[in-house]
Amino acid sequence: MSDSFITDDFMLQSIAAKELYHDFAKDEPILDFHNHLPPDEIASDRSFANLFDVWLAGDHYKWRAMRANGICESRITGDADPRDKFDAWAETVPHTLRNALYHWTHLELDRYFGFEKLFSPDTADEVWEAGNEALASPSFSCRSLLEKMKVKALCTTDDPVHSLEHHKAIAGDDSIDIVVYPTFRPDAALWVNDSEHFNNYANQLAEVSGGDCGSFSGFLDAIRSRHDFFHELGGRISDHGLYTIFQTECSKAEAEKIFDKVRTGKCADEAETDKFGNFLMLYFAELDASRGWTKQLHIGCERNNNSRVFGELGRDVGCDSIADINHTAAFRQYLDTLDSRGQLPKMIVYNLNPKDNYSLSAMVGNFQSGKPGEPPCRLQLGTAWWFLDTKEGMEWQINAFSNTSLLSRFLGMLTDSRSFLSFTRHEYFRRILCNVVGQDVENGEIPRDMELVGNMVKRICYQNAADFFGLDV
Amino acid sequence: MSDSFITDDFMLQSIAAKELYHDFAKDEPILDFHNHLPPDEIASDRSFANLFDVWLAGDHYKWRAMRANGICESRITGDADPRDKFDAWAETVPHTLRNALYHWTHLELDRYFGFEKLFSPDTADEVWEAGNEALASPSFSCRSLLEKMKVKALCTTDDPVHSLEHHKAIAGDDSIDIVVYPTFRPDAALWVNDSEHFNNYANQLAEVSGGDCGSFSGFLDAIRSRHDFFHELGGRISDHGLYTIFQTECSKAEAEKIFDKVRTGKCADEAETDKFGNFLMLYFAELDASRGWTKQLHIGCERNNNSRVFGELGRDVGCDSIADINHTAAFRQYLDTLDSRGQLPKMIVYNLNPKDNYSLSAMVGNFQSGKPGEPPCRLQLGTAWWFLDTKEGMEWQINAFSNTSLLSRFLGMLTDSRSFLSFTRHEYFRRILCNVVGQDVENGEIPRDMELVGNMVKRICYQNAADFFGLDV
Amino acid sequence: MSDSFITDDFMLQSIAAKELYHDFAKDEPILDFHNHLPPDEIASDRSFANLFDVWLAGDHYKWRAMRANGICESRITGDADPRDKFDAWAETVPHTLRNALYHWTHLELDRYFGFEKLFSPDTADEVWEAGNEALASPSFSCRSLLEKMKVKALCTTDDPVHSLEHHKAIAGDDSIDIVVYPTFRPDAALWVNDSEHFNNYANQLAEVSGGDCGSFSGFLDAIRSRHDFFHELGGRISDHGLYTIFQTECSKAEAEKIFDKVRTGKCADEAETDKFGNFLMLYFAELDASRGWTKQLHIGCERNNNSRVFGELGRDVGCDSIADINHTAAFRQYLDTLDSRGQLPKMIVYNLNPKDNYSLSAMVGNFQSGKPGEPPCRLQLGTAWWFLDTKEGMEWQINAFSNTSLLSRFLGMLTDSRSFLSFTRHEYFRRILCNVVGQDVENGEIPRDMELVGNMVKRICYQNAADFFGLDV
Repeated sequence: MSDSFITDDFMLQSIAAKELYHDFAKDEPILDFHNHLPPDEIASDRSFANLFDVWLAGDHYKWRAMRANGICESRITGDADPRDKFDAWAETVPHTLRNALYHWTHLELDRYFGFEKLFSPDTADEVWEAGNEALASPSFSCRSLLEKMKVKALCTTDDPVHSLEHHKAIAGDDSIDIVVYPTFRPDAALWVNDSEHFNNYANQLAEVSGGDCGSFSGFLDAIRSRHDFFHELGGRISDHGLYTIFQTECSKAEAEKIFDKVRTGKCADEAETDKFGNFLMLYFAELDASRGWTKQLHIGCERNNNSRVFGELGRDVGCDSIADINHTAAFRQYLDTLDSRGQLPKMIVYNLNPKDNYSLSAMVGNFQSGKPGEPPCRLQLGTAWWFLDTKEGMEWQINAFSNTSLLSRFLGMLTDSRSFLSFTRHEYFRRILCNVVGQDVENGEIPRDMELVGNMVKRICYQNAADFFGLDV
Repeated sequence: MSDSFITDDFMLQSIAAKELYHDFAKDEPILDFHNHLPPDEIASDRSFANLFDVWLAGDHYKWRAMRANGICESRITGDADPRDKFDAWAETVPHTLRNALYHWTHLELDRYFGFEKLFSPDTADEVWEAGNEALASPSFSCRSLLEKMKVKALCTTDDPVHSLEHHKAIAGDDSIDIVVYPTFRPDAALWVNDSEHFNNYANQLAEVSGGDCGSFSGFLDAIRSRHDFFHELGGRISDHGLYTIFQTECSKAEAEKIFDKVRTGKCADEAETDKFGNFLMLYFAELDASRGWTKQLHIGCERNNNSRVFGELGRDVGCDSIADINHTAAFRQYLDTLDSRGQLPKMIVYNLNPKDNYSLSAMVGNFQSGKPGEPPCRLQLGTAWWFLDTKEGMEWQINAFSNTSLLSRFLGMLTDSRSFLSFTRHEYFRRILCNVVGQDVENGEIPRDMELVGNMVKRICYQNAADFFGLDV
Repeated sequence: MSDSFITDDFMLQSIAAKELYHDFAKDEPILDFHNHLPPDEIASDRSFANLFDVWLAGDHYKWRAMRANGICESRITGDADPRDKFDAWAETVPHTLRNALYHWTHLELDRYFGFEKLFSPDTADEVWEAGNEALASPSFSCRSLLEKMKVKALCTTDDPVHSLEHHKAIAGDDSIDIVVYPTFRPDAALWVNDSEHFNNYANQLAEVSGGDCGSFSGFLDAIRSRHDFFHELGGRISDHGLYTIFQTECSKAEAEKIFDKVRTGKCADEAETDKFGNFLMLYFAELDASRGWTKQLHIGCERNNNSRVFGELGRDVGCDSIADINHTAAFRQYLDTLDSRGQLPKMIVYNLNPKDNYSLSAMVGNFQSGKPGEPPCRLQLGTAWWFLDTKEGMEWQINAFSNTSLLSRFLGMLTDSRSFLSFTRHEYFRRILCNVVGQDVENGEIPRDMELVGNMVKRICYQNAADFFGLDV
């Protein structure tokens, strides 16, 4: 592997870093507790026709980079043929130097396909042909791709109205060694500002739950019954994608009034939407707390910024970005209300704006319970996310976590990805983690006691998460 | 000391760093110009019954870390016995790797007690026994602990209504070599939103000053007379703990109206509280400016976030955190109003959110006087504080100060601590400072001229502060 | 040069960094596409009487540092004689260690005057005498100073009401090899909150354009005709200095109403000023987009903070600082409105608060066009600016750009300066860039492929900008 860009010691810049990675981190299995993989493809063990399908067809990170590189939309999401789009990506990659995409691309080609050269227009033919040949073999089905990376368990992201039929199928299929759990993500239940959408959603919820969503109580019951259903299928985690925390306090009577208004076809105004969201987010937390679940909050994303592209291509196409919002006052109120009610679930907060790592991590630290039987760091800052899923972003998150909490108790990495090829990001994270911690060892800032330090790293890679969530793994 | 974690060259990662620390920094005395030490304990030269009393009983940093580690509250602030609480801390320390607490803990055990091993449940017995034995000797009284660290002078933090009897006692006691000055911290005078509290406070102020706090003028006069009294006892510094800067302009007539309302037992509303605070903070500054004092502002802390814990344990128990606020517009107005009136005192601004280091330091830079007889950097960013009192936080502060002001004029470190064992943080700061500056020397970014560079470091350790405040040290 | 502080390898801390700088970066010419040089001095090829005139007379960065150092205003901007002011600067420089001014000062003395010692009161005589002697020779006229630095082209910053007579003179003067273009900076057209100022400005605009600014349509036409005029003289860039983005949507009818009100002598209120600015900034963008220009936004500066100094000395005297504002929501609306209208010009956003690098760079990334014929990164984060024009600030900007965009497409450095001696900042930037990128090579984070990496660096130094703007260089 000596000529490879991705060497054995890639990202490991000290002797201690290398020791930590090779002896403690790299062999740990993967518990990918948050991603957006399609469960139907796991259930059916989908194979992929070509590199475009498995690598480019759904990856808006790459689309965004191609747009930045001046590539025409036809060769990104348009009607160009797959090979032409693949070439557009090959043209772009050499210009991603110093971007995490450069690392991810080469890790993916190396780890899944054994391709060790630099990817560029010069090597595009070779990669295309060898990659497509590999994909034609059964050892490149989506399950095989997961097994190649030692994925032991994963949690997909699912709407409460989903039947979870694929999760059931996977659970009933003895040929699958990987356990796959659903995650309860009820974002659609919040958007009373769009009555058509909301009513459609409430009707779906009524149907799937067998409940009555004509009344607010019925709506809440229906949500609870879906939460129960997810629990039965092994789900122990919820998730929310929020611009920021809804902050206006709202009684049940007020929420009911807003609900009733929207059910008559009128849209809630901005203030009502904030209130309704405030009420519902407390309700969701109550459900999570009552069953010992963990709530994930993904906050600070400004979505669908480009109206033109949204109109043409819809959501999740590479036109989201980093909001700059002052979260802490509203976040404090949310946590404090739940804590006062005895309904504060375990929680992970993923932050998208690097300026907020410290304030958010410090804020959750006010609500560690001090009660018996609770896990360490039952509230914590989640791993670096999306735009921050880079060397710099991860170092910031690791340092903020270390300085404001107990790194030893960190739950570590997850892919948050739609792609079966992105599990090399766990390797990427582990190398960065080992490099950061190893540098401290070399600097004498932490003791050169490899049992102490190595086992901390090891637990962050897998065991902390396996112990925390109560998932059956 | 070869097996120790805290080596002679701890945190010093280059030859120049070592030279700067050992030749210029380490032997400087300490002027701890801001802390929360109890003056009565200095006056009485308190001794400590055991390690819990001196090390854990009052340290909410440790409490917070223990809660994060899943320790039950009974073993933190509850009714468990001291040794059990000590063991809870011993269980937690190995999980604080990469947190400043890991460094502080080992520095404190090494420098005060000579204990050089890693602290953990394995060594807890040994530390407990040796530590308690040491504490029984007179050379571990609180004055002795200060002398061990070469503390030459310190400034405690005191309410204007305090009698300062202990400061007087200390000043009159020839057996004490350390000078101890009070700091004027009138936070309680601001909170007109709680009329019961405010009226109680105004009455205390009337009593201690012998003035009449029935009228607003009398209230202001009483404050001034206490300021005079602090001045007589050698105080030259005020201090304020603020969420952010009060920003609504307020005439004396308006402030008086609010005062009169609150004195009748009604609480001020939010807008009135902001106005009253605005008026009073200008008045305090006028007092400071008129006597050549230095005003300290500690801004950006969100306090008492957890209502449940606040109800059970009160303030300062480890449930405070980092606010995210946009300070600069209000801060500018405060500084500009004072400058326009010719009443801008010397000022140090301590910032709790790392995102604000640059904007706050740049803002005070607009108000350096250009007038004869004023010290360099008469307004400046204070040293990294609380959650930022870490290697990373200090590096950020040092870099922000360097880039937006003149590091050579920096007033340096203070403990801000309630503990007699925390004076090793000056050593910690000095090591970090020397490491940062030494790295620049090695990189050729500043000249390898040790007279120039070493003396800059040396002045930051002690002399800049000794020259700046006009304290008699 | 072995004794010099500014060595050949200054700021280059690895072998790869040295190779990148010496083989790829240092010989590139300079296209300084944004500065505040006085075109009349270029046209007349001004010479300078002494070091004070060329180096201190107009540099508010130095004034600010001197104020911080406790220098009296008389020796900064007052009536002290030039040599005394020069000595005040010499006293200050040793206290600027770790500030970019220390580097700039020594780079300027070395590169323009060949002075290699450390500058301080000890060497002030020598520098003053040698410097003044050099300045007396024709090879130190302002054109010569530019040529010494291989400046090929530069863009000054000009008001639409300016006659551009000096640009014409320069263009018509065969003895000048440097091309000098105007930049369209219509800030004064926004400030309807000051009707006297605005009306005076509108009248000037009417006069210079030969149009009628009595009506809003005439005003807009007059602006357009000046834009045309700048275009004829080779201008392809506009520029705006904004506190933040004007965010209230405003129809043409509303803007017209505000205009008409102000033209009657009444001042617009705050809301009207915001609306008028919103309308006009969209109009300016339409002009830029229609002609293929690039719009520059300088956002986040809080100006003229010190009323006393403003009253005494006016603008741009060292009393500006870094605002802390949440820009993204308004910025998104601005970009999205323009994109929806098909009127989004190429754009560079310069950010003054380091907390905003990521969110601003991510935001422009939502609006890369995906259309044929557009350059890569047609919207991008500009180079580190003003308070951030430091090693740390540039590293932050380079890293933010790398992680949220394509560094390979970065337009690189510009001086933004009023001084003919500040072109060494291009060298400073190039050294920092090479150091950052070289470190990645050494770390194995980017391939040790010097054709790939070196040419990226080389393009950032000059060719990317030469290709991007459509300037005739």
